[in-house]
Amino acid sequence: MTKTSVTVLGLGLMGGALAEALLRDGRTVTVWNRSRAKAEPLVAKGAVAAESAEAAVSASPLVIVCLSVYANAEEILGGAATGRTIVQLTNGTPRQARAMADRAAGLGARYVDGGIMAVPPMIGQPEALILYSGDQEAFEEHRETLAVLGRPQFLGADPGLAPLFDLALLDAMYGMFAGIQHAFALVRSEKVAATDFEPMATAWLTAMLGSLPEQAHAVEAGDFATTVSSVATSQMAFPGLIETSRDQGVDPGYLPAVQALLDRAVKEGHGEDGLARLITLLESP
Amino acid sequence: MTKTSVTVLGLGLMGGALAEALLRDGRTVTVWNRSRAKAEPLVAKGAVAAESAEAAVSASPLVIVCLSVYANAEEILGGAATGRTIVQLTNGTPRQARAMADRAAGLGARYVDGGIMAVPPMIGQPEALILYSGDQEAFEEHRETLAVLGRPQFLGADPGLAPLFDLALLDAMYGMFAGIQHAFALVRSEKVAATDFEPMATAWLTAMLGSLPEQAHAVEAGDFATTVSSVATSQMAFPGLIETSRDQGVDPGYLPAVQALLDRAVKEGHGEDGLARLITLLESP
Ligand SMILES: NC(=O)c1ccc[n+]([C@@H]2O[C@H](COP(=O)([O-])OP(=O)(O)OC[C@H]3O[C@@H](n4cnc5c(N)ncnc54)[C@H](OP(=O)(O)O)[C@@H]3O)[C@@H](O)[C@H]2O)c1
Ligand SMILES: NC(=O)c1ccc[n+]([C@@H]2O[C@H](COP(=O)([O-])OP(=O)(O)OC[C@H]3O[C@@H](n4cnc5c(N)ncnc54)[C@H](OP(=O)(O)O)[C@@H]3O)[C@@H](O)[C@H]2O)c1
Repeated sequence: MTKTSVTVLGLGLMGGALAEALLRDGRTVTVWNRSRAKAEPLVAKGAVAAESAEAAVSASPLVIVCLSVYANAEEILGGAATGRTIVQLTNGTPRQARAMADRAAGLGARYVDGGIMAVPPMIGQPEALILYSGDQEAFEEHRETLAVLGRPQFLGADPGLAPLFDLALLDAMYGMFAGIQHAFALVRSEKVAATDFEPMATAWLTAMLGSLPEQAHAVEAGDFATTVSSVATSQMAFPGLIETSRDQGVDPGYLPAVQALLDRAVKEGHGEDGLARLITLLESP
Repeated sequence: MTKTSVTVLGLGLMGGALAEALLRDGRTVTVWNRSRAKAEPLVAKGAVAAESAEAAVSASPLVIVCLSVYANAEEILGGAATGRTIVQLTNGTPRQARAMADRAAGLGARYVDGGIMAVPPMIGQPEALILYSGDQEAFEEHRETLAVLGRPQFLGADPGLAPLFDLALLDAMYGMFAGIQHAFALVRSEKVAATDFEPMATAWLTAMLGSLPEQAHAVEAGDFATTVSSVATSQMAFPGLIETSRDQGVDPGYLPAVQALLDRAVKEGHGEDGLARLITLLESP
C-alpha cells in the first residue's frame, strides 16, 4: 500500500516541523507558505512547493493546516477543498473550530480539528500528544498518517473538543507556572537560588498532583467534604502569603485573584468545604 | 538513653496529631490547650495535661508550639521558656519567625522555626516533610525526636527560611490548583466530566513539571533564550483562552493576572524570551 500524500499549509515553526516529520516518513509532501522562503529548506528535503494555497489543497487527499490564527486559515481554504480531509492544527477556540467545520462541510470537505500538546522539536516522537476531534471516519482513515506527527488521541465527534481540551491543558499549565514562578521570585527575594529551591518544589508539586483525582471526583459528585484542608484554612493563610510577597518586594501576581475566590467561597458559606468547591464558584461568576 | 520528654502547646488538628505521634513513640508528653477539652483524648492515651501554658513549658526541655497564628504563640511563651528549646510549628511569615527568635533569645531560650508540609493524617510518616531553620545546634540535638513527626529537613540558621520555603511551596501549589480548577470548570462547561479530563491533565502537568529545572536555571543565569515557547506566543494565545472562558460562562479567575504580566513582558521588550522571564518581572513590580 502506498503511503497517503499530504499537503501542509503554513510552514512556521510548527508547520515546518510537521512537514519534516512527514518527509522523514517517506511521504509525498506538498507545501505552501505565504512567504515563499520558508518552503525552500523543505523543498531541499524533497517537498513539492505549490504555487498557491489552492494548488496545494488540490494536490493531496489530506490537507494539514497550521497557521498562526484561524482567521488566516479561513482565508486560504477555497473551492479546491471539495473531497479533501482538512486537519486543522492551528490553535483556536471551540467556537472557531465548529464554525470552520460548518464551512468545510459547505465546501464538501471532511473536517478534523486538532490540538498539538507539544513543541516543534518533539514532533515525530510518541511523547508529542496530538488531540483530535470531528469527523471520526476521516480521522480513522488517516490515523496512520497522523501518527507520524505524534501520538494521536481522538476525543469525539464535536470538532470543538480538541481545542477545548487543548485550551484547558494550557490553562492548567499556565496556572502551575504562575504559582512556581511566583514561588521562585519569593525565595530569590531572600537570596535563595531558584535552582536550590526547585528540587523540593518539583517533589512537592508532584505529590500535590495526587489530589487531582479527588478534586475531580468531588466536583462531579457535588460532595466537597474534606478531612485535610478546608477553604477557610486557605482563606486564613492567604493574607500572610500576600503580605509576605509585598514585604519581599514581589508583585502579588495571581494571588489576589485566588484570595477573591476564597473570600467569596467563605462568604457564600463554603468555608468548611475542600478546595474543589472553588471550581463551582468559577462556574457561576 | 531515655527518650527526650516533649511539651506540645496547642492541640488543634495539627497539634493533636503531633502529640499523638510522640505518644505512639513512647515519649513523656505534656500537653496544653486553651480550651481544656482537646487535651482529654490525649490524656486517655498517656499524655500529662498541664494546668497552664507556663507549667507546660517548664515540664520539658523541648517545647513544640502549634497554634492557629503567631500572635497567640507570642502570648503564651513566658518566663518559663528559659533554657528550653522552642520549636515553632505555627504557620507564619519569615518576619514573624525572626521576631519570635529574638523574643526567645531574650528569654534565654533556643529557637527553631518550622513548616509542616503535610496534613494531620500524614504526621508520623516519612512522607510528611517538615522544614526547619534557626538554631542548628538545638535542631541537631532534637533531630531524632523531631523525626518522629515526619521527615525533618534543616534549611539554615536564619529562622525565616522555614516559613519562607513553606510559603513558597504553598504558593506554587495554589497556582497549580488555580490552573487545574479553572481547566476543570472549562471542560465541565462543555459537559465533559472533570473525572474524564483529569488523567490527561495529570499526565500533562507531570510532563510540564519537567520544565522547572530549566526555568530555575534560566532565571539564575539571567539567560532567557528559548527554542520552545516564547512570551510572545503565550501573549498571543491568552486572549483566546480568556475569551473562551467568558464564552463558556466561566469566571476568568487567575488568567487576567497572567495576561497583564505577559503584556508587560512584551511591552518591555521580552517577547522573544522564554516564560522564565516572568519571574524577573514579578521581582520588580
Ligand atoms: N510553536 C509551538 O510551540 C506550538 C505548539 C503547539 C501549537 N502551536 C500552534 O501552531 C500554530 C502555528 O504556530 P507556529 O509556532 O508555527 O507559528 P509561527 O512560527 O509564527 O508561524 C505562523 C505561520 O502562520 C502563517 N501566517 C500568519 N498569518 C498569515 C496569513 N494572514 N495568511 C497566511 N499565512 C499566515 C505564517 O506565514 P509567514 O511565514 O508568511 O508569516 C507562518 O507560516 C499556532 O496556532 C500555534 O498556536 C504552536
Ligand atoms: N491542618 C493542617 O492541614 C495544617 C497543615 C500544615 C500546617 N498547619 C498549621 O498548623 C497550625 C495549627 O493548625 P490546626 O490545623 O491545628 O488548627 P486548628 O485545628 O484550628 O487549631 C488551632 C489551635 O490554636 C489554638 N488557639 C487559637 N487561638 C488561640 C489563642 N488566642 N490562645 C491560645 N490558643 C489559641 C486553638 O485553641 P482552642 O482549641 O482553644 O481554640 C487550637 O489549639 C496552623 O498554623 C496551621 O497553619 C496546619
